[in-house]
Amino acid sequence: MATELHVFAVPGIPEAKGGDEPGVLIADAIERAGLALADDDVLVVAQKLVSKAEGAIVALADVRPSAQAREWAEAHGRDAATTEVVLRESRRIVRMERGVIISETRHGFICANAGVDSSNVAPGYVAILPRDPDGSANRLREVVERRFSCRVAVIVADTFGRPWREGVVNVALGVSGLRPLDDLRGRADRHGRLLHSTIVAVADEIASAAELVMGKTCGLPAAVVRGAGQWTGRGTGAELRRPAAMDMFR
Amino acid sequence: MATELHVFAVPGIPEAKGGDEPGVLIADAIERAGLALADDDVLVVAQKLVSKAEGAIVALADVRPSAQAREWAEAHGRDAATTEVVLRESRRIVRMERGVIISETRHGFICANAGVDSSNVAPGYVAILPRDPDGSANRLREVVERRFSCRVAVIVADTFGRPWREGVVNVALGVSGLRPLDDLRGRADRHGRLLHSTIVAVADEIASAAELVMGKTCGLPAAVVRGAGQWTGRGTGAELRRPAAMDMFR
Repeated sequence: MATELHVFAVPGIPEAKGGDEPGVLIADAIERAGLALADDDVLVVAQKLVSKAEGAIVALADVRPSAQAREWAEAHGRDAATTEVVLRESRRIVRMERGVIISETRHGFICANAGVDSSNVAPGYVAILPRDPDGSANRLREVVERRFSCRVAVIVADTFGRPWREGVVNVALGVSGLRPLDDLRGRADRHGRLLHSTIVAVADEIASAAELVMGKTCGLPAAVVRGAGQWTGRGTGAELRRPAAMDMFR
Repeated sequence: MATELHVFAVPGIPEAKGGDEPGVLIADAIERAGLALADDDVLVVAQKLVSKAEGAIVALADVRPSAQAREWAEAHGRDAATTEVVLRESRRIVRMERGVIISETRHGFICANAGVDSSNVAPGYVAILPRDPDGSANRLREVVERRFSCRVAVIVADTFGRPWREGVVNVALGVSGLRPLDDLRGRADRHGRLLHSTIVAVADEIASAAELVMGKTCGLPAAVVRGAGQWTGRGTGAELRRPAAMDMFR
């Protein structure tokens, strides 16, 4: 168990453009800041940076809204083209009421607006989630590991809302080099009693820790969490997605 | 925006017993470790420590299970007395299937088993959530602020599961001295575009960061998050509970 963590933002990452290699943008910024990554660091990267670099950006002028999208947008004061992108990115609608669409994305994430978002994107465009967040995390890890000659973990993260609680928190979409779930079942507590149902989503907790230094308005789309080396290893973000058959809320 | 956080566990906190003052247990341990709290520190304390100190512990031998509790327990291989405590702690059942009870507690938290938990509690007993987590956080804050002559924030936290995602994450039940939600609405992104719907649950993210160093099996029920001073101020954990009328999943 880590008893100490250090979390710091990577300063000076430029705006990502289509075709950029996210790992290069971030590694360059780390070097310019006189910093380096070390073994067991966890690099947390905002989904938006990855989406921009991968061209997961949609020009709204090119989108022809369906009748469903137009009706919904008109009824709820939303943009029809953006609504159309949300519906295209969804493989199933979980809730569609009060002007909010909660849907399951093609990856299996359940979130508001299928992760489609216009903030920090040029006017007239929206960002969608990366096609394959685990693949994005893998490529990012390869690039930064080569640059800094060390073994690290990478999390591609986005802020999601939750039922029952106000506010969004950062969660791990893509994971590479990290066991995202720490399964304490079978370990004993202080009374020697087995812990029965405790699996901690450490990747989500690490993403949340990083968000505190990243900030949505400050152009800090990456942060390093140092001290979480006990969880580095093999793992994917897919492990964090609960299978539909095990879920009580969809 | 904080660009750096330091998170560390408080070592050497003894097992809490009924009548203990949680703030005194923690402050003593901080001093014994040669540490101190400083202005703007956020002290995150596990709910279990607070429940034990406040006597929010139930002896299962004293519980007479209702017929409903007995039937459910028998059908799902659960303990009838524990099930009875879960039902008593619930003001409304949200889901009750597959051996899992998701309910709304009297405070308005929605979680598994109404927060009733046997881990890290003596055999034959279960812990329930503190009656008034915000009140517990307030008292804790008063005690540690007096001891260390500084202004800090306190979060009383517990790990909750979530729909759609595997694993539990630490969330803030009680809050004192901290604005739990950072409302970015009205602030501009890098393109000068207003952020429309971004309210970040920073208290939950801070609780999650702290959990990474606390650990469920290691007897480390408190941690300090240093560097989150931009969010200290007035606030309560109640602000994090979404009102039922605004919630789509109960």
